[in-house]
Amino acid sequence: MIDVAIIKQRLFRLRELMEHQGLDALIVNRGDEHLSEYLPPFKERLAFISGFTGSAGTVVILRNHDLSELGKKQLVIEKEDHLVTVKNSAAIFVDGRYTLQARNQVGADLFDVFQYNKVSLQEWIQTVLDEGVVGIDPKCISYHSFSKLKTDLQNLNISLVNTANNLIDELWTDKGNEEIASVEIFEDKYNGCPSLEKRRQIAKILREKQIDATLISKSESVNWLLNVRGRDIPNLPVVNSFLVLYSSEQVEWYIDPRKVPNSLLSSLQHHIGKIDYYSEDKLAELPRRLGKQGSVLYVDPATTNAWFIKLLEENNVQLVFGDDLCDMPKACKNPIEIAGMKKCHIRDAVAMCRFLAWLDHLTEPLFSQDKHADLDAKHLPALEFIRTHNEATLSEQLLKFRSEQEGFIEPSFDTISALGPNASIIHYNHVNLGNPRPLGLDGMYLVDSGGQYYDGTTDITRTIMVGPNVNNEMKERFTLVLKGVIAMHRIRFPKNTYGVMLDVLARAPLWQVGLNYEHGTGHGVGHCLNVHEGPQAISQRGGQVPLVEGMVTSIEPGYYKDNEYGIRLENLTVIEQARNQNSGANMCAFVPITFVPFDTRLIKKELLTENEKNWLNEYHFKVRELVKEHLSDFEISWLLRATSAI
Amino acid sequence: MIDVAIIKQRLFRLRELMEHQGLDALIVNRGDEHLSEYLPPFKERLAFISGFTGSAGTVVILRNHDLSELGKKQLVIEKEDHLVTVKNSAAIFVDGRYTLQARNQVGADLFDVFQYNKVSLQEWIQTVLDEGVVGIDPKCISYHSFSKLKTDLQNLNISLVNTANNLIDELWTDKGNEEIASVEIFEDKYNGCPSLEKRRQIAKILREKQIDATLISKSESVNWLLNVRGRDIPNLPVVNSFLVLYSSEQVEWYIDPRKVPNSLLSSLQHHIGKIDYYSEDKLAELPRRLGKQGSVLYVDPATTNAWFIKLLEENNVQLVFGDDLCDMPKACKNPIEIAGMKKCHIRDAVAMCRFLAWLDHLTEPLFSQDKHADLDAKHLPALEFIRTHNEATLSEQLLKFRSEQEGFIEPSFDTISALGPNASIIHYNHVNLGNPRPLGLDGMYLVDSGGQYYDGTTDITRTIMVGPNVNNEMKERFTLVLKGVIAMHRIRFPKNTYGVMLDVLARAPLWQVGLNYEHGTGHGVGHCLNVHEGPQAISQRGGQVPLVEGMVTSIEPGYYKDNEYGIRLENLTVIEQARNQNSGANMCAFVPITFVPFDTRLIKKELLTENEKNWLNEYHFKVRELVKEHLSDFEISWLLRATSAI
Repeated sequence: MIDVAIIKQRLFRLRELMEHQGLDALIVNRGDEHLSEYLPPFKERLAFISGFTGSAGTVVILRNHDLSELGKKQLVIEKEDHLVTVKNSAAIFVDGRYTLQARNQVGADLFDVFQYNKVSLQEWIQTVLDEGVVGIDPKCISYHSFSKLKTDLQNLNISLVNTANNLIDELWTDKGNEEIASVEIFEDKYNGCPSLEKRRQIAKILREKQIDATLISKSESVNWLLNVRGRDIPNLPVVNSFLVLYSSEQVEWYIDPRKVPNSLLSSLQHHIGKIDYYSEDKLAELPRRLGKQGSVLYVDPATTNAWFIKLLEENNVQLVFGDDLCDMPKACKNPIEIAGMKKCHIRDAVAMCRFLAWLDHLTEPLFSQDKHADLDAKHLPALEFIRTHNEATLSEQLLKFRSEQEGFIEPSFDTISALGPNASIIHYNHVNLGNPRPLGLDGMYLVDSGGQYYDGTTDITRTIMVGPNVNNEMKERFTLVLKGVIAMHRIRFPKNTYGVMLDVLARAPLWQVGLNYEHGTGHGVGHCLNVHEGPQAISQRGGQVPLVEGMVTSIEPGYYKDNEYGIRLENLTVIEQARNQNSGANMCAFVPITFVPFDTRLIKKELLTENEKNWLNEYHFKVRELVKEHLSDFEISWLLRATSAI
Repeated sequence: MIDVAIIKQRLFRLRELMEHQGLDALIVNRGDEHLSEYLPPFKERLAFISGFTGSAGTVVILRNHDLSELGKKQLVIEKEDHLVTVKNSAAIFVDGRYTLQARNQVGADLFDVFQYNKVSLQEWIQTVLDEGVVGIDPKCISYHSFSKLKTDLQNLNISLVNTANNLIDELWTDKGNEEIASVEIFEDKYNGCPSLEKRRQIAKILREKQIDATLISKSESVNWLLNVRGRDIPNLPVVNSFLVLYSSEQVEWYIDPRKVPNSLLSSLQHHIGKIDYYSEDKLAELPRRLGKQGSVLYVDPATTNAWFIKLLEENNVQLVFGDDLCDMPKACKNPIEIAGMKKCHIRDAVAMCRFLAWLDHLTEPLFSQDKHADLDAKHLPALEFIRTHNEATLSEQLLKFRSEQEGFIEPSFDTISALGPNASIIHYNHVNLGNPRPLGLDGMYLVDSGGQYYDGTTDITRTIMVGPNVNNEMKERFTLVLKGVIAMHRIRFPKNTYGVMLDVLARAPLWQVGLNYEHGTGHGVGHCLNVHEGPQAISQRGGQVPLVEGMVTSIEPGYYKDNEYGIRLENLTVIEQARNQNSGANMCAFVPITFVPFDTRLIKKELLTENEKNWLNEYHFKVRELVKEHLSDFEISWLLRATSAI
């Protein structure tokens, strides 16, 4: 965690730079020029200036660090039924997952912290400024967001201007040397479709739309399209770069030349065919060339930065806006990708089962004592040993088991290893939120983790009983969450159903008793790519995209009781034609590819219907079948217990 | 049904007019200048020119009635997996509800008939015309649809132009005298909120948005806002007119002066306060006045016709587009409106129960014979009597029972009275589709009907056993549809949930066995207004509006087996805070206001869960409680049987 005093110094120097550029305020987004969810460490500018390390957030900093100098009587935001006071000369806006983490990480005397859909950046700015100039680095915001923000601020008599450079980079002079990793060829046995064929299909769409070329800014799309990977970013095995695909199928790849050493060129050409390589900094010259040629360019305004699209507009390039053309073909996995996803999920399940067997064995002494009695002398040494384990060591142990699996590259995101009340923080991170909590105090443990493998990407959450302090309410709500999981696995739905329509099935058991969870039910998952991949989603606001066969989607309902406990259960599934013989030919289903037991000790059986119990028992039977042969005798005896029919 | 020869003549004369105006084609929408779903008879232009009498559809007519003269080799529309041949020099585009009716009503040698989302008007025009001029009456299409159509046609090198007059009206010279009905005051005991108060609330929104005025084109909105009603349209008790509400709360009402006789003026003023009356034809002068004043006008481009918005644009009136500001307050019924809805639904239930008791008594002889034996002599006279009854006489009998109820004005839509295979036509109408089918042949009867009452509007569908020819499959599917109804009644959901999210609950039981229905699950219902009212909906594509307390919504899943049978079960419900003691404070529920038995003879009990059976038994108990006291002894004994617990 970055010391508040250091952040204070940085803010002081930043305000000098803002003064110099005549800015009344500066907005800092988390994105880099690729607008990725995951960033290289040297682009973590939001963390540098605020201390907040979450994966999404926006900071606004006033030049005037002293609010009283604004000459305003009252710094209060009026909401429908309450008032919000502005307390600091900077504010951070995050989503509901991150409010606690942000409060914990940023200095309370430096930043106001808001959930962006409760108090917006616009409302905050409107309260502190009557007019003025707000700066932003247009490379770090999508054209789409930039345009909306500009209009919103204009309505408040505030102009949004581009900063000359990135002001954070001007301060941040001690980044050290950026590590340069080479592009990696993503082999045919994994990708399932030659790059040439992928490019052919997209070029065909361009020709049909009478468009000359498309710019692809999103690294996942470029890596998918070229069948390459890289190591530029933790958790996301991609190389950052830009790509232009012409309707003629010609490709221009804008990439740091250090990442494509000469030694790699011939094997790359063999792998992806002949394409043109440009240094990334040559991208700035593209708009002029396209403008001169009178080209029509297709760009995604939500994934392309504002700087580049404005450059295109200035050069009179005719633009067609639309979703990244790689999105849908990338989301609909081909048979080789699906086979890979299934295989790596079995290896991942082996690692998870080993971990759970190890954990159960570790916590056994907690269960053998009478839970109402005080600790007796016999168990004290075991208990002390248990408490040497904590959220961090559990996470490390799980990583160790994963690392032993063939083809494992790295975790697909920071593991959420949360004991007791910490699990109520939806995106808890033991590294970023105080000290890791020791094992032995709580009844339940939530672990949400995943791996990047060459043949796929995994993401799994289980909530486990790790101590006797589990009450009836916890079991009841665990069972309601499980009912949601089962409902999603059992539903049959017509092809092209929208994700937004199915979300309710996971929530209904909780809704019936007045409960809910404040996150989506499912997100798409990449293939050895981003563990959060669009365009499909199963959620209340997103999910306006049809679900089709081959999409890999998480199913992860939960329940969170603030400061007490949290429950989440997550499987990945692939959408397949439904095999159930009762089903008509056009029905689809979420077929699980995650095969790890749900903790039956937390189930209140009387809340499950016969159909639900049957589903669970069949699922557990399949877990046993798939995982057993890879386990030790000790682990097998755990597995047999964990998967026995209820 | 209009004779095809007459339509042929009309088309011939229309083509002469088109020739005269230099049009290559003419588009005729069903709407009038208010774009209503329901029309006065003398505005049924689509029916006049095509013979099609459904409530939604568009016709396009080529000037050239001989396709071979178009000089095209092939008149074929290429679809993904098949070809569609253009056969006629005119086409009609309807939604899935109306394809059968359209095929039945329009001459097969005059019109191609298409479901608009399978073959679009644009595709058809593109196939027959390489370029050209297509005319439309801009008063009969919304600005929204007009703009989209114009762009679509422009991309096909076709210009969409306004016809000088409505060409159909030029042909249609024998309309006879339009009946002029006076405005009716909609009394305070029914409306629950004074017009002044409604206007105050909307004027407040205008002031907050810094808008000077709003034009309201939708008759339902004008009638709701002024607390008036009228008899301009069958099934929809409104007076057609336009209204402008200023942010100062001043009102200009553009209405045919014959509908506001002098004798009414003082009581009107007493009822709605002082407003300015203008003759409807003065509306054309409004844009110039607003333009001169530099006014900002709020209009709904989806409910305001293209002619008027273009006039506003020509006069440089600054326009703000958005949904009709009456939509949400009209949809969220006030306590008096809800009380009225509940009361008229009990009277409506009495009429329905009388009808069902009468019908069951009528069909008794069909059940008393052995269903496998041939008709025996004893039953023949009874059977012959039964067959004198048909879809038309049943519908008339039901209307008779409704008419006896206090406050009944008229049916809220054309009754769907469908026996056997006719029920598989979702919007079947025995008047428009051949001869009414006689009772006695089929096992099931579907009746979808409703009434306009001064205190509310009803809409109910029941599917009834009317003969022994009901097989296992029918019962199974009836039960699946009923499960969907029960799921919607049992769900608890947070306030502001979107309708699109809940739709699946009604479909899931059918989806599980590969079945579905091709219509929405629920629509809003007006209060002594349109039986189909927005903005809320429970459906797969619509329903992007949050559900809030006070909204009245239908729940009407179904199942339709082409040419065999159809099942639909429909209750109206009001969204209320959930009373269930398990529910948290913020949960809502669909609370039924329709209280008529579901036919338990068609239920396969083993497909219902205990919870579902309990819900049904409790519902039937409530039906008995509410309806019993209004029935005769004979009807009561029917009710006791129909509502006995399963």
